Amino acid sequence: MQNFQDLNIQNQRFAKQIAFLLELDKLKNIYRRSLVLHEDRRENDAEHSYHLAVMACILAEYAKEKIDVLHVMKMVLIHDVVEIDAGDTYFYDTAGNQDKAEREQKAADRIFSMLPEDQACEFRALWDEFESRNSPESRFANALDRIQPMLLNYMKGGLSWKSHGIREDQVRQNLTKIHDGSSEIEVLAESIIRTAVEQGIL
Amino acid sequence: MQNFQDLNIQNQRFAKQIAFLLELDKLKNIYRRSLVLHEDRRENDAEHSYHLAVMACILAEYAKEKIDVLHVMKMVLIHDVVEIDAGDTYFYDTAGNQDKAEREQKAADRIFSMLPEDQACEFRALWDEFESRNSPESRFANALDRIQPMLLNYMKGGLSWKSHGIREDQVRQNLTKIHDGSSEIEVLAESIIRTAVEQGIL
Repeated sequence: MQNFQDLNIQNQRFAKQIAFLLELDKLKNIYRRSLVLHEDRRENDAEHSYHLAVMACILAEYAKEKIDVLHVMKMVLIHDVVEIDAGDTYFYDTAGNQDKAEREQKAADRIFSMLPEDQACEFRALWDEFESRNSPESRFANALDRIQPMLLNYMKGGLSWKSHGIREDQVRQNLTKIHDGSSEIEVLAESIIRTAVEQGIL
Repeated sequence: MQNFQDLNIQNQRFAKQIAFLLELDKLKNIYRRSLVLHEDRRENDAEHSYHLAVMACILAEYAKEKIDVLHVMKMVLIHDVVEIDAGDTYFYDTAGNQDKAEREQKAADRIFSMLPEDQACEFRALWDEFESRNSPESRFANALDRIQPMLLNYMKGGLSWKSHGIREDQVRQNLTKIHDGSSEIEVLAESIIRTAVEQGIL
């Protein structure tokens, strides 16, 4: 690996931004529990966040409240950045979820502060907003974050549920957050659960 | 793989949108020539498009002309969708680039028409705009699309240039399109080429 400093970028603001963007390359190596549809491998955070960003612009009309689409897209693009330090904590991992918040706060402190101060504040606030679900945009973003792996897991024949021993009642825990973001997506989630149970893959 | 039809989605518009979003999963399996920074493997189109979308919002201030950031982000998210059918054509592949336009037009016809008509028109127009570079947004998006692999290739010690026998004058072909989108990014591109040549990796 070359040293980024050797490029000798004079504009310090720009240099910070490029360093942050290079740091995000690590998201391509953080593997989630979901599998991609057309290869036998786990999906990584960059791919997952890509998918959420496209979903945000294609499905915006189904948000339960009026949303700013750009705001949602920025939020989903950075919502998993903290996993560069804190790792991916599986939604159904009770032990891992106990200290998840603390690990992720520390990660957010380090990673967003790589940016120039104004953008560090903006993107840290977006991440806090996503976590808090206290706005129409964050409620919609959380609904997307929950339906995307459900949809992949269903399409993949429930492999990820099976291999982690996940039961219907655990998958149903996603429904409240989906409900708060979008009625149409909630109907889809209900249909996925019902169909998966009928087909014996959940 | 399960059959998406089994979910029996009643809202036909929504069903089309979800089918399109599932189709995009294939971008996770289209491998480019660039390598990711922290694993020994090629980058795929979903990861590349993810990176461009974050770059669009972090680096928007450096666009040469006034831009609508949401418009740029949507454009970069779908700019490589045609490669699902047409494959990735390496920028330096002269033969592959001869029939690239025709192959990609056919792909765009098929893939975007999976969407409901209004969105099919919107996203097809975004793709055409990206290709034509006839707007401030498309010129900035093209600059991002050119600098991102240059930056990865430089950081990765020029491995991708070396393994495909790419010379400095070929990499310099990127500069015009970068110049049209952003002066700051052009300075970075010049620095990457100069430094890579000095270090003997290009």
